[in-house]
Amino acid sequence: MSEVAGRLSVIEGAKHLEKPFGGSGVLISGVPGVARANVAIIGAGVVGENALKMAVGLNANVTVLDVNMKKLTYLDDIYGSKITTLYSNNHNVEDACINADLVISGVLLPGAKAPKLIKRAFYKNMRPGSVIVDVAIDQGGSTEVSKATYHDDPTFVVDGIVHYCVANMPGAVPRTSTIALNNSTLRYGLMIADMGLEEAIKESEPLKFGVNTYEGKCTCRGVADAFNLECQEL
Amino acid sequence: MSEVAGRLSVIEGAKHLEKPFGGSGVLISGVPGVARANVAIIGAGVVGENALKMAVGLNANVTVLDVNMKKLTYLDDIYGSKITTLYSNNHNVEDACINADLVISGVLLPGAKAPKLIKRAFYKNMRPGSVIVDVAIDQGGSTEVSKATYHDDPTFVVDGIVHYCVANMPGAVPRTSTIALNNSTLRYGLMIADMGLEEAIKESEPLKFGVNTYEGKCTCRGVADAFNLECQEL
Amino acid sequence: MSEVAGRLSVIEGAKHLEKPFGGSGVLISGVPGVARANVAIIGAGVVGENALKMAVGLNANVTVLDVNMKKLTYLDDIYGSKITTLYSNNHNVEDACINADLVISGVLLPGAKAPKLIKRAFYKNMRPGSVIVDVAIDQGGSTEVSKATYHDDPTFVVDGIVHYCVANMPGAVPRTSTIALNNSTLRYGLMIADMGLEEAIKESEPLKFGVNTYEGKCTCRGVADAFNLECQEL
Amino acid sequence: MSEVAGRLSVIEGAKHLEKPFGGSGVLISGVPGVARANVAIIGAGVVGENALKMAVGLNANVTVLDVNMKKLTYLDDIYGSKITTLYSNNHNVEDACINADLVISGVLLPGAKAPKLIKRAFYKNMRPGSVIVDVAIDQGGSTEVSKATYHDDPTFVVDGIVHYCVANMPGAVPRTSTIALNNSTLRYGLMIADMGLEEAIKESEPLKFGVNTYEGKCTCRGVADAFNLECQEL
Amino acid sequence: MSEVAGRLSVIEGAKHLEKPFGGSGVLISGVPGVARANVAIIGAGVVGENALKMAVGLNANVTVLDVNMKKLTYLDDIYGSKITTLYSNNHNVEDACINADLVISGVLLPGAKAPKLIKRAFYKNMRPGSVIVDVAIDQGGSTEVSKATYHDDPTFVVDGIVHYCVANMPGAVPRTSTIALNNSTLRYGLMIADMGLEEAIKESEPLKFGVNTYEGKCTCRGVADAFNLECQEL
Amino acid sequence: MSEVAGRLSVIEGAKHLEKPFGGSGVLISGVPGVARANVAIIGAGVVGENALKMAVGLNANVTVLDVNMKKLTYLDDIYGSKITTLYSNNHNVEDACINADLVISGVLLPGAKAPKLIKRAFYKNMRPGSVIVDVAIDQGGSTEVSKATYHDDPTFVVDGIVHYCVANMPGAVPRTSTIALNNSTLRYGLMIADMGLEEAIKESEPLKFGVNTYEGKCTCRGVADAFNLECQEL
Repeated sequence: MSEVAGRLSVIEGAKHLEKPFGGSGVLISGVPGVARANVAIIGAGVVGENALKMAVGLNANVTVLDVNMKKLTYLDDIYGSKITTLYSNNHNVEDACINADLVISGVLLPGAKAPKLIKRAFYKNMRPGSVIVDVAIDQGGSTEVSKATYHDDPTFVVDGIVHYCVANMPGAVPRTSTIALNNSTLRYGLMIADMGLEEAIKESEPLKFGVNTYEGKCTCRGVADAFNLECQEL
Repeated sequence: MSEVAGRLSVIEGAKHLEKPFGGSGVLISGVPGVARANVAIIGAGVVGENALKMAVGLNANVTVLDVNMKKLTYLDDIYGSKITTLYSNNHNVEDACINADLVISGVLLPGAKAPKLIKRAFYKNMRPGSVIVDVAIDQGGSTEVSKATYHDDPTFVVDGIVHYCVANMPGAVPRTSTIALNNSTLRYGLMIADMGLEEAIKESEPLKFGVNTYEGKCTCRGVADAFNLECQEL
Repeated sequence: MSEVAGRLSVIEGAKHLEKPFGGSGVLISGVPGVARANVAIIGAGVVGENALKMAVGLNANVTVLDVNMKKLTYLDDIYGSKITTLYSNNHNVEDACINADLVISGVLLPGAKAPKLIKRAFYKNMRPGSVIVDVAIDQGGSTEVSKATYHDDPTFVVDGIVHYCVANMPGAVPRTSTIALNNSTLRYGLMIADMGLEEAIKESEPLKFGVNTYEGKCTCRGVADAFNLECQEL
Repeated sequence: MSEVAGRLSVIEGAKHLEKPFGGSGVLISGVPGVARANVAIIGAGVVGENALKMAVGLNANVTVLDVNMKKLTYLDDIYGSKITTLYSNNHNVEDACINADLVISGVLLPGAKAPKLIKRAFYKNMRPGSVIVDVAIDQGGSTEVSKATYHDDPTFVVDGIVHYCVANMPGAVPRTSTIALNNSTLRYGLMIADMGLEEAIKESEPLKFGVNTYEGKCTCRGVADAFNLECQEL
Repeated sequence: MSEVAGRLSVIEGAKHLEKPFGGSGVLISGVPGVARANVAIIGAGVVGENALKMAVGLNANVTVLDVNMKKLTYLDDIYGSKITTLYSNNHNVEDACINADLVISGVLLPGAKAPKLIKRAFYKNMRPGSVIVDVAIDQGGSTEVSKATYHDDPTFVVDGIVHYCVANMPGAVPRTSTIALNNSTLRYGLMIADMGLEEAIKESEPLKFGVNTYEGKCTCRGVADAFNLECQEL
Repeated sequence: MSEVAGRLSVIEGAKHLEKPFGGSGVLISGVPGVARANVAIIGAGVVGENALKMAVGLNANVTVLDVNMKKLTYLDDIYGSKITTLYSNNHNVEDACINADLVISGVLLPGAKAPKLIKRAFYKNMRPGSVIVDVAIDQGGSTEVSKATYHDDPTFVVDGIVHYCVANMPGAVPRTSTIALNNSTLRYGLMIADMGLEEAIKESEPLKFGVNTYEGKCTCRGVADAFNLECQEL
């Protein structure tokens, strides 16, 4: 689903840069003779990589930030002169945000709250009508003001900056999202149908790992902690 | 402005393919393992070429149709294995529309009504929720049901097909559009300011060609005809 | 050698699409204004990746299928808008075959018979003269009718579909194949020449792994099983 | 048709480089670690450009020669580091042929015999089994030994060099060729059907230009000269 | 020769950005995680296009400015997301220069002094050690302080900005330059040798146009004006 | 730093091919109609990959040699028809050097002297004025005559071949190099500042690995061996 969200984030960003949607009225691609939009992508994980692919495809001037040098090197191999890669630190994040027409944040730490890398203090130096698409909203968001929104009213404005914070982005393209989900999960469903749950779990480590409750007992440490339940090893 | 409209058409199309906007819920780019959308671009003029650039950038499976073989050959040089070029005839247009998730029409005949190449009869064989962006709406549109819409309510649905027919597409990105317009027109404004209208017209053929009225008389044949005025040579 | 076979498979496929060779008379690349051939590549292993590279190079409209999502994602990074990647399941394989002018199968399971993914039932819905290049023929082939052929009579026709099933494809380009083989094996030959077999085996794990018989005893489990011999640890 | 022939020429060349077809046994693309074939394309007209596209697509090391600097510059823009462009003179043609595994000649002078740019004297310095595809065979061919061949026996060998000289190359892919031809000619057929020949000729300059006989008189200067007929202006 | 100078200009610029050569110590390409240099190319004629090709090749962040919209559109087709194209006006030139680590000027007006587009007033806002390569130096140069230099001492510094103003840049790569020159001129030399000057001039318009003196009289208007000679029609 | 050196090596090589710098006077990129330079890159490690990227960017005809087949395959994926990959053995290295205008060696064996792969015996068959950039000079160099040089006198000539052997190449672009170094090391400095050395070492394996002396005792095996000191485990 991160791939869907990453790709969608650029379409949403480009759309909300339109004036009638509160944006600054910049066409992400520019046209010959008129500068294209600057896009800053914070985090080069699955979300960031997929956003990058779409933003480059729309001819934006893209800067991508991460601390993972191996990933930045790979992106440099793939995209070459099409992008700027920057090591992610406070100074570079601020710089990239201030220069950006569109900021996409895909900074997700597995099982932890997303860090608030995008400070409200940056906003006063950004162009009014610039857009932040906060794909990390599921885990609390990457800005200090992020709060989850829905597809029917996807944005809010703080200090002139448009925030797109839809928590369930892939829900907008259910046909693609469902097939993508099936590609990853159908085999497990078939295993359970064929073998019964117990046998299937013995066969498949990932399936075992995915069981949250069994015979009325919580079997997943994370869920148990979150809901203050007793956890029982499967 | 055709460049702005052409580029924007793909962003609008991708956006309106989203389920909450009436579309079929397909992500234009697909994701690895899930098919990408089919995009048919009818007409490889300025609108079509710019739409093509964006649609390819978003990893869609693009087919472009035109009768201009020289232009199709140029596009084949530039885009190679990224696109399919088809000679435009009734059979190919129907085929391309029926297979498309998104149809973009940029068929503009200078000074004439756009031909209605996209028949309503095609719709029953198209996937419900497919989108037609009719950039030719300024000149009457390319479908049999096209009618101009506005940015605040840009689409209508006929036989399950979403029609995007905003007549003033570049108005959504005024910052880019204004600069693009200035790049083409500012020099003429400066000429008039520097030299006075009469001298400027003598210097510049395009400027002369752009004068519609002079000393209370209509000086442009097309406008005169349209409004039933007497036309006086400048 | 899989790299040679994978690359060659597209040249063979393109050649046998010619009418005088039994094919449907389609030029794999198309020309501007005429659709290019659809190529389905089943399996994105070494054979599939190399076939992909050549098929894209010849401007075909390529769909590649595999269950390995990581590999599909890598191919999406490298080829972007040039290909469609599909998760491999019965439905998608059938769909891809039916739409294909050329099917290339490179589905090889190490040390096992190739699965018969391409059903004869598909043929009646394929265009007559379409071509299947079955690179998996060494391990039994991927179609229900595959049988090994030779370079002097490389194809046979079943239900109108041309099957190319040469078992030793790299033999057609011995100059390239020999050098490729030397690049991988010469170092081991030199080790044996320099050190004697016993010392060389102690130095090199891959070399030890490659010894099939020693002092009259079979030392390779697989060969021993196949020929019903006693196997003796080296 | 030149586009079909140009594209096909590379597939034929790659195929006939195979050992069982008399070639040197080189895989045109090479594989990683093994050099790719050198391909020399003489003439950057329609044939040459289309051959170039396919040869680059198959990862060959391509050199293209022409005297048209504007065309070479365009190819440099499109292909950049993928090709070498050389000004065509005797020295460069000889050099390119001697280093080539595959030579493709598309030197066509409209309405004249093709110049014999590829001298038999080059052959002794070429690698045995190298292939020449002489697309100019329709107009006499580009080598000193060229003679037309047919699809059922397409090659002959002189001094160890394989010559492919099929005069009607597009005939191998009739499906693609027929559609390509229709794209260019159908409109004229429809004009004649709709308007009658006389009216159609008045409307269309190219159609008029294409009339060879009218009311029993030859109306085409070239044909008249060739067959020693009287020529009558249409 | 403009092609040689344009390509060389980027190598010279990259070299002189090195600290030991007075530059700011920036590597033109950056490395993953470190920003690449900004390169502004003023003028998209032959010099500019060739500089662009090399600067993009070295992964610089390139902005190209011109008033020729058709050329900017072509560059957008070829380079897509790799470059920014800007309409050339005072504001954009100043902006591009101030942000640039390397400025390359190739603004040549045929037969006229190059306009002084790069103002000394810009320098105080540029990073010290930035480099200007003034390929227009042959026609007076594009900066207010340009003066011709030679290969043995190619640069001078004004207000902290390094100026590279070698008037005969192609002289640094005589092997390439000589062949390039021969490609364009040899045919004329051969014509004169074969036919004598008088006949050759009758055959060839360009050759006639290139004659500066004949029988002791100056026959070229431009040269005559420059040296205050009488001009006699050939 | 290897990335900086690898990228810089091509700029240095291109510069020193200029006649005034002792080179053969070849422009690395060629121009349309004139052959581009042949560049041989020996070793496809970090240095080689980065040199490759720049050399391809400058449109050189690049051959890269390594024994690592996986790396060659990756480069083939990324660069396709833009490069030739060769398995590195004596024969191929000699061949590549003899045909090269520019040789870049980045063969570094961690903690060992670089192998002398480039024999002086090759020089007599190379074009005079060809350039070798020996990035392995830090570890003794890759040629039989290599000796370290400095930025103020970077080259020497042996048998007509220009050797560039600056030991501290990244020192030429200190701005880029310093930031690159900071990206990798700053976090460790901050850890020591925050936690004190002892705690920081406990937290971070790489930091511990980097300590050479502690309380007056040498704690690094390599340094201890090199200077004949007693080594004390940290």
